[in-house]
Amino acid sequence: MEFAQYHDRLQRTAAEKNSEFADNGQLLHLINGGQLTPNSIDLLCDLADRIRLLSREKATAAALQTLLSHRRAMLYFTQPSTRTFLSFMAACQILGLTCNEVRDPKTSSEVKRESRMDAIRMFSSYFDVIIMRSPLSSFAEACSYLMNDLRREERRWVPIINAGSGSDEHPTQALLDIYTLKRSFRFQDREGSGQRFADLKTRHPDLTKGFAHKTYTFCGDIGRGRTVRSLATALSQYENTTMHFVAPDVAALRLDSQLRDQLAKRNVSVFEHETLDSDFQGRSVLSQTDCLYMTRIQREHNSADDENRLEEMDLSPFQLTPERASKLKEYTPILHPFPRDSQVQEIPEAIDLDPRAMYFRQARNGMWARAALLAHIFGVAEELEEIETHSHGRKTI
Amino acid sequence: MEFAQYHDRLQRTAAEKNSEFADNGQLLHLINGGQLTPNSIDLLCDLADRIRLLSREKATAAALQTLLSHRRAMLYFTQPSTRTFLSFMAACQILGLTCNEVRDPKTSSEVKRESRMDAIRMFSSYFDVIIMRSPLSSFAEACSYLMNDLRREERRWVPIINAGSGSDEHPTQALLDIYTLKRSFRFQDREGSGQRFADLKTRHPDLTKGFAHKTYTFCGDIGRGRTVRSLATALSQYENTTMHFVAPDVAALRLDSQLRDQLAKRNVSVFEHETLDSDFQGRSVLSQTDCLYMTRIQREHNSADDENRLEEMDLSPFQLTPERASKLKEYTPILHPFPRDSQVQEIPEAIDLDPRAMYFRQARNGMWARAALLAHIFGVAEELEEIETHSHGRKTI
Amino acid sequence: MEFAQYHDRLQRTAAEKNSEFADNGQLLHLINGGQLTPNSIDLLCDLADRIRLLSREKATAAALQTLLSHRRAMLYFTQPSTRTFLSFMAACQILGLTCNEVRDPKTSSEVKRESRMDAIRMFSSYFDVIIMRSPLSSFAEACSYLMNDLRREERRWVPIINAGSGSDEHPTQALLDIYTLKRSFRFQDREGSGQRFADLKTRHPDLTKGFAHKTYTFCGDIGRGRTVRSLATALSQYENTTMHFVAPDVAALRLDSQLRDQLAKRNVSVFEHETLDSDFQGRSVLSQTDCLYMTRIQREHNSADDENRLEEMDLSPFQLTPERASKLKEYTPILHPFPRDSQVQEIPEAIDLDPRAMYFRQARNGMWARAALLAHIFGVAEELEEIETHSHGRKTI
Repeated sequence: MEFAQYHDRLQRTAAEKNSEFADNGQLLHLINGGQLTPNSIDLLCDLADRIRLLSREKATAAALQTLLSHRRAMLYFTQPSTRTFLSFMAACQILGLTCNEVRDPKTSSEVKRESRMDAIRMFSSYFDVIIMRSPLSSFAEACSYLMNDLRREERRWVPIINAGSGSDEHPTQALLDIYTLKRSFRFQDREGSGQRFADLKTRHPDLTKGFAHKTYTFCGDIGRGRTVRSLATALSQYENTTMHFVAPDVAALRLDSQLRDQLAKRNVSVFEHETLDSDFQGRSVLSQTDCLYMTRIQREHNSADDENRLEEMDLSPFQLTPERASKLKEYTPILHPFPRDSQVQEIPEAIDLDPRAMYFRQARNGMWARAALLAHIFGVAEELEEIETHSHGRKTI
Repeated sequence: MEFAQYHDRLQRTAAEKNSEFADNGQLLHLINGGQLTPNSIDLLCDLADRIRLLSREKATAAALQTLLSHRRAMLYFTQPSTRTFLSFMAACQILGLTCNEVRDPKTSSEVKRESRMDAIRMFSSYFDVIIMRSPLSSFAEACSYLMNDLRREERRWVPIINAGSGSDEHPTQALLDIYTLKRSFRFQDREGSGQRFADLKTRHPDLTKGFAHKTYTFCGDIGRGRTVRSLATALSQYENTTMHFVAPDVAALRLDSQLRDQLAKRNVSVFEHETLDSDFQGRSVLSQTDCLYMTRIQREHNSADDENRLEEMDLSPFQLTPERASKLKEYTPILHPFPRDSQVQEIPEAIDLDPRAMYFRQARNGMWARAALLAHIFGVAEELEEIETHSHGRKTI
Repeated sequence: MEFAQYHDRLQRTAAEKNSEFADNGQLLHLINGGQLTPNSIDLLCDLADRIRLLSREKATAAALQTLLSHRRAMLYFTQPSTRTFLSFMAACQILGLTCNEVRDPKTSSEVKRESRMDAIRMFSSYFDVIIMRSPLSSFAEACSYLMNDLRREERRWVPIINAGSGSDEHPTQALLDIYTLKRSFRFQDREGSGQRFADLKTRHPDLTKGFAHKTYTFCGDIGRGRTVRSLATALSQYENTTMHFVAPDVAALRLDSQLRDQLAKRNVSVFEHETLDSDFQGRSVLSQTDCLYMTRIQREHNSADDENRLEEMDLSPFQLTPERASKLKEYTPILHPFPRDSQVQEIPEAIDLDPRAMYFRQARNGMWARAALLAHIFGVAEELEEIETHSHGRKTI
């Protein structure tokens, strides 16, 4: 059995595990979406906002790049992912962190029968953080246990960041979705004034800022979309949320019972539909939606059988046509973890210029959110403040 | 059809297109060799000279590296090219621009049926310039249209640099050839004094500086050499030039009628030959040549039929033997876009130490020329001046 | 024949060659382990120590990164090696040297029939040092001859660093082994006090610091392990050493006669064994060992015949079990060039927390040793001193 030495620790509940991944509110590693509590969400989103702002001016951007310039990152991506990889690269570069990569699943050392754990400990000799993506679902978790054991022995250890582990967890994707929503749910205009929220309130008197008291609609590949599970789980921590799941009637694609139970336990009102045109309590689901989260049907995970069923199936009920988009509220952000399917066109290009379309901004937000995570993990929040003070001083003088 | 949404724009004349790639003399994108007008050539070569000079001293080299240190480049090379890739990398590094790359033609997102344009727009979320090389001839051009549309909508957009598109255009190769020639045609000695030009004038009374009034000889793969077409086109903008094209008598390798017509329209005197030993007006072509541009017979583009004909063919007439080199004028620069063929030996190693051999220097010039392009596109010419002033100040004190 | 133009130079004795790789005590290139003389070992280990120390504090680490920030390195690894590659990357990054890489053995230019030497000279146009690993045993050496010829002609040339050439030489691996041993044989405690050595002397009255007067035991793949040959050769330069070689009784794996003769010539006492349990002069070899160097049986070089013999063979005599480790002296460092074989388990994980286990530290030392080499080759020892003075000044004030 793989990772046999960590067998017992891998069997624990999420809560037991997560306590090992942090020390006194400071994240040591980011392994599971469950570590994204309201507290850590607030903290990371605040950091992301500040890093984004400081990146705008050359002088403060240069100062940001000194924060971690003495550190080296290893991006160990044995499962390919251009998007996540590039986003982490850019995040590292914003903070001056030097990047190194291993992307070939067959590294030379595996040929030489090196154990996975030896490879990781070797990386930890050269690099100061390991950002890893792997098809093995428990690999990142096992690595964080190795590091924690070394830490306990007062040996050299480094933080582990899970950039996607099998079909299991992808916590930084959840973080960027949440960050995008958090920004959307401030209802600010470009200049950051509160005027827009006041305007919206005249037409939507019940509207509040933040994640609570909202209706979320998820559409597409609900069952296999790691991102849907992570985001829904994170949002379930907030009060009074309703979630609609719109998926084809194929077992693998529908809401699985595990997630349904988990959401129910946290008092989320959960509903399932087979088309974006569904009604709920007499009005269309779309018209009641505060956030629409679209996803791609993931063909690469299909069995031949699934593939045949999908080929025959009409996927138009899961397409955000302009007509359907017109039913959404004026402020409802449209998210998509991307890539989108250029053949199915779950979001046609015609939507791209809609001001509610957030999916390209989402990608950019991923970069800020990941930079925030790195800044937090390396504990440079204080230095960040110095840059802000210094920059502010210069501006006022 | 690929890039259908830009169909009409892709059909326009070069002049119509090029006006869209610049704004008030400032290049927004570099897509076509036709953008290299005498004005932009002067401007970019001047920048290249200055960057080269500042790179010599550690202090000014370090200052150069701050110019674009807050910017991130994407080198998107889905068609392999070690040489061009490394040259752009080095150019970025000279200006402190952080480099990222995607080189695998099968990126994970293509597997997921992402459209090419979504991938490009995603890159533009993370990076500040996209340098792209692709086997698709119109891809870079289409990307610049996407970016111009975003620019018009006041959305985030980034510059596109064409690093080779199919068999079509490779404008920075043309730029580095021109830059090498421009330096050669100053006829300076190493110390930059004018003595060498004065000396040469005693033996070559008609000699002038610059591209005009010169005889250019191109030899080898004329028909398929993108670089020959680009360079000849750029040079045709100058007064009173003569061009000799020396190629095997194989249709695909000879001067094509399109280029011949285009050169004729600009009053270039064009002649064709089947050996480097040809005479022209009673004297050998080589002895009249002011610049010799050698190229490799590109076997990788051959049909089986071509291949058979070439195998049987005697390629020695297209070889720059030492004997032939001895016929060239004392100042005639020998260029080659490299790589050269180690079997055909169109330029044997024996020529490498000839002071007129420019082909290794050409590679190095490519780095300066590309750095110049980046400096221009990001508009940092003014900061460059500050470094020069500061450096000069320090030296005199 | 490959590299025909350097045929005569490649045939010379090591001593003749090595004089060409240095100029007045300054290494121009590092090609052979034979260049690691006691003098250069002292010099490089001293630099490594100082770079390690300066890397600890952010301010001095940042200063280190300015030392070579105006330089660009090419890591040309046409033979894969994750470990050596990453170690060199990290070493470059410590000194601010920008890294570029070519790792694909089939670069596009080879397809185009470019000669190997043209590729190298092209790299030297863009980059300031070439760090190369190749399956061709004389390639790096030939490149250094090309560079020396250019240097003689006062043309642009760059240093060549051999990062592993065929089964031949891997001088920086030898350097890091030596550096690890040099640190071990100071017998200091963590705080760097001399107390530990004094304590050890009470129990081991003959103990001295340094490489001389020591017993070295090498175990595993003696015949094919490049690292064993390099390290043994380097250590043979020191007075009064004894070397035990423990290997399976397979011709390819045992001490070859060439190395045996060479060691004998230098008055090393050499003994061979077929198990780690062997006795020597009435006491177990292990109990007399001052340094144990373990290696992996390199299956990837096996013939089918070797493979069959090895499959049948009991490899347990070459395993460092905890029981055997308990026979080693209290101070004996355990080295392994890594990776270790997770199936054979020549060093089981149970040893990893033993304070004598140096193999993970060895990897980290490789980074410092390689950074030292780069600092030496680029001649920045003086600037290093400035950083130390400045840093010391700051601390005392």
